[in-house]
Amino acid sequence: MKIAVLTFPGFNELDSFIAYGLLNRLHPFGWHAFITTPQDRVVSMNGLEMQGQQPLEFANQADIVLFGSGVMTRDIANDEAVLGRLQLNPARQLIGGQCSGTLLMAKLGLLQDVPACTDLRTKPWVEQEGINVIDAPFAAQGNVATAGGCLSAPYLSAWAMLKGAGESATREALYYAAPVGEKDAYVDKLLDTVRPFC
Amino acid sequence: MKIAVLTFPGFNELDSFIAYGLLNRLHPFGWHAFITTPQDRVVSMNGLEMQGQQPLEFANQADIVLFGSGVMTRDIANDEAVLGRLQLNPARQLIGGQCSGTLLMAKLGLLQDVPACTDLRTKPWVEQEGINVIDAPFAAQGNVATAGGCLSAPYLSAWAMLKGAGESATREALYYAAPVGEKDAYVDKLLDTVRPFC
Repeated sequence: MKIAVLTFPGFNELDSFIAYGLLNRLHPFGWHAFITTPQDRVVSMNGLEMQGQQPLEFANQADIVLFGSGVMTRDIANDEAVLGRLQLNPARQLIGGQCSGTLLMAKLGLLQDVPACTDLRTKPWVEQEGINVIDAPFAAQGNVATAGGCLSAPYLSAWAMLKGAGESATREALYYAAPVGEKDAYVDKLLDTVRPFC
Repeated sequence: MKIAVLTFPGFNELDSFIAYGLLNRLHPFGWHAFITTPQDRVVSMNGLEMQGQQPLEFANQADIVLFGSGVMTRDIANDEAVLGRLQLNPARQLIGGQCSGTLLMAKLGLLQDVPACTDLRTKPWVEQEGINVIDAPFAAQGNVATAGGCLSAPYLSAWAMLKGAGESATREALYYAAPVGEKDAYVDKLLDTVRPFC
């Protein structure tokens, strides 16, 4: 599985790196997540400078595409030169996003008739696009999913893992990352939340 | 508050970046977390190349120092040229670590008589240092704390925030990052876990 974690200038570290770290736990099953950026280097919302691992166009061939969020997403949402590089298709790809990443998915027409999750700040902008925003950490329909709140990233990752690798591999990968002493309950909660959407 | 998130070659992205993202939510209260590295550039366990924001010695003057983990920590634990650059003091600093970061804290003599948390893989190495490892996501004594499991990072961050900024600011910062629709329960669980240690 090739996974594009879409990461734009001003990105929120939590969104991109939690998904990146969790999905790469499936390396033994042939999964490879890449920080995928519109330019060679990007700087995060807190000033962290990072080398992108794949160009934006990589997403078009990826099996899974996740939209992270950030403080410049409204600009990016109106930048056709950037968004025009993305040619995604939920018929052949799992596509997810969280927080302001949901806004980019809305702009790309990926959320028509799909109830969506996002953060409190982004909510009015997503609603302006005609999307029904719900008060939940996670929702999905078919191959399209959204999550709301930085720390909802494990839900989005668990959904992609469960859809793409099945329950046994997903449970094993999440179990490793879960807090010690709470592992079973932690993994159960993630899986119980996303399973109805799989 | 100046915060050093110690990040070594081969680092685990979850540990360093969850703490980094959460603690920087206290910017409005004058908190600034920095990815603090032994060399100018570091590459993560999954191949992510990143520019460090502060040199290792920054930790010696920081108010809060957090040890992330990674796949090369055993080598670093035996590298006196690297660890010798750290002169930390829990009498004047909050010091925390998670997973293999706990091993570095043990090597630096920061965990004497303090029950410690770490991940399942690192546990035997920490025990070899004479440390009592407990089956819990988080533990602290005075100004020294440890956590076990990548996704225990929010506990470690919540502890540092609660100790340094008080409950109101901590609750507000964590609330923003928590999953939508679960925010109160999520923040309560974090605070309930770390409060007995504060």
